[in-house]
Amino acid sequence: MCILYMAEPSSAAEWRQAFLERAPELQFREWPEVGDAREVQYLIAWKPMPQLMEQFPNLKVLYSAGAGVDQFDLSDLPDHVSLVRLVDGAMAEIMAEYVIFAVLALHRDILDYQISQRDRVWAPLPIIPAYERRVGVMGLGNLGQLALERLQPLGFQISAWNRSPKEVPGSRCFVGVDQLHAFLGQCDILINLLPLTPETTGILNASTFAALPEGAGIVNVGRGAHVVEKDLLTALDTGRVGGAVLDVLDQEPPQPEHPFWRHPRVLLTPHIASNVQVKGAVDVVVRNLDRACKGLPLMNTVDRSKGY
Amino acid sequence: MCILYMAEPSSAAEWRQAFLERAPELQFREWPEVGDAREVQYLIAWKPMPQLMEQFPNLKVLYSAGAGVDQFDLSDLPDHVSLVRLVDGAMAEIMAEYVIFAVLALHRDILDYQISQRDRVWAPLPIIPAYERRVGVMGLGNLGQLALERLQPLGFQISAWNRSPKEVPGSRCFVGVDQLHAFLGQCDILINLLPLTPETTGILNASTFAALPEGAGIVNVGRGAHVVEKDLLTALDTGRVGGAVLDVLDQEPPQPEHPFWRHPRVLLTPHIASNVQVKGAVDVVVRNLDRACKGLPLMNTVDRSKGY
Repeated sequence: MCILYMAEPSSAAEWRQAFLERAPELQFREWPEVGDAREVQYLIAWKPMPQLMEQFPNLKVLYSAGAGVDQFDLSDLPDHVSLVRLVDGAMAEIMAEYVIFAVLALHRDILDYQISQRDRVWAPLPIIPAYERRVGVMGLGNLGQLALERLQPLGFQISAWNRSPKEVPGSRCFVGVDQLHAFLGQCDILINLLPLTPETTGILNASTFAALPEGAGIVNVGRGAHVVEKDLLTALDTGRVGGAVLDVLDQEPPQPEHPFWRHPRVLLTPHIASNVQVKGAVDVVVRNLDRACKGLPLMNTVDRSKGY
Repeated sequence: MCILYMAEPSSAAEWRQAFLERAPELQFREWPEVGDAREVQYLIAWKPMPQLMEQFPNLKVLYSAGAGVDQFDLSDLPDHVSLVRLVDGAMAEIMAEYVIFAVLALHRDILDYQISQRDRVWAPLPIIPAYERRVGVMGLGNLGQLALERLQPLGFQISAWNRSPKEVPGSRCFVGVDQLHAFLGQCDILINLLPLTPETTGILNASTFAALPEGAGIVNVGRGAHVVEKDLLTALDTGRVGGAVLDVLDQEPPQPEHPFWRHPRVLLTPHIASNVQVKGAVDVVVRNLDRACKGLPLMNTVDRSKGY
């Protein structure tokens, strides 16, 4: 059995080592040293590539080297090739860590204090107890679910918005487009963990911000294209949105003139909220290969009708 | 029974209301409207005042309107007057919230990302998993204990340093001056929650920083005087200490020329990590009054030999 790695070259050695430890019988190849391309049944890729099937006629499974698959053109992929997202528990834990950081930063007015610090002003603000703060998560995939579970013990009023109903203890789940505005109306802090699909592109726009309570905080750890950035800029400048913690932008890295670099109400990080943890990801790949050999359905496959 | 309130005037109405709800039989008086000073047996004060006993000859209990008592000169207070700290669960929860924020900010390199954001540089750093990060708390009073308990589920390696041995599940407790350097040597992130006493004044100094792992992070939520600020400045400038989240300073507000205002490796907040939650504090006061009436020992009294 042969697996071809075509993702981030600087991580290749770590992947090779992890496969060697977990499944030494597997042949691990690194692009561009493909060998006999007809032997490639399993592919780990981050960026899409043209003529995939012509290059690898016996491809069975395409693994995205990340939690999202929005970078692939799903229509190019024949139905008999499975598309699998690499999601493991460690990745979700790291994401939850970032979400807790971002929510607490907004909850405890850290953007205001950063401005005060810069201006040499000592200006304490009233402390709002967590039980008076309403925190909502958009998207209850495995990342969103764990983030919500980890926020719950901090005492916030938590809720979620999802395509289909899902229960997370201690939270209320709003479902579908019909309940979006009701959900937004009770989010003092809004976290985006949706997959990027045609339906969710630009979902954080002027009408979304208008539905939030005045001065609400935004955490975007989904994709940059979820946000209409000019709408967010206006919302921040008018105070409609009080602050934003952004880990992703529409273009990464952003242009030097991008207004979020120096915006006092934006805390910007360079797409580091989480990443694939190689050891856990390799474990998921190998367990999936075992399942494929036994004729069992694969885990974490993408439903192409939904796009995630 | 009469209680005199001499703390923050802007909070007086909230205290009055809380006493009215919790113990309507109690006479609540607000400084400077003392009435007959001989009737004052209970005093809630934040700042010390001279000739306390001459003014209130029948004083029985002095409540500090905060978690610390370092602002009082304990030698001025006769032995028969009890000194009580106002510590309630809500205050500890709010402190733990801030500590989690500060630890995650250091753990996830937020000071570096703030510098990058200012410089318009998109520079992801490797993510260190929580289980590889060693977080230590100095001071296992009720605030330190809860902070440690709340950090534990985030997956950090946690430890504590305390005057006397205390057990917090999942953590190691280092005890006394003899074990201080062993404790510091394994703190990637150090949190100060000690009481301020003659023994702990200036405890965060050049020798402390030298004992930490290179580039360790510091969180000070104790008192400003715990830190020798010029030593911390040197440690930050040389990289010995990688970053500091400071909620307290030796002088508050600091002078406009204080180097921490604009230091890129300092996240400064204006003494807002926690504060007394009036409702909970009033409950503690009233329960203590009940105990006093029944001749039971008071809760949260200060041991003057230890200074906390």
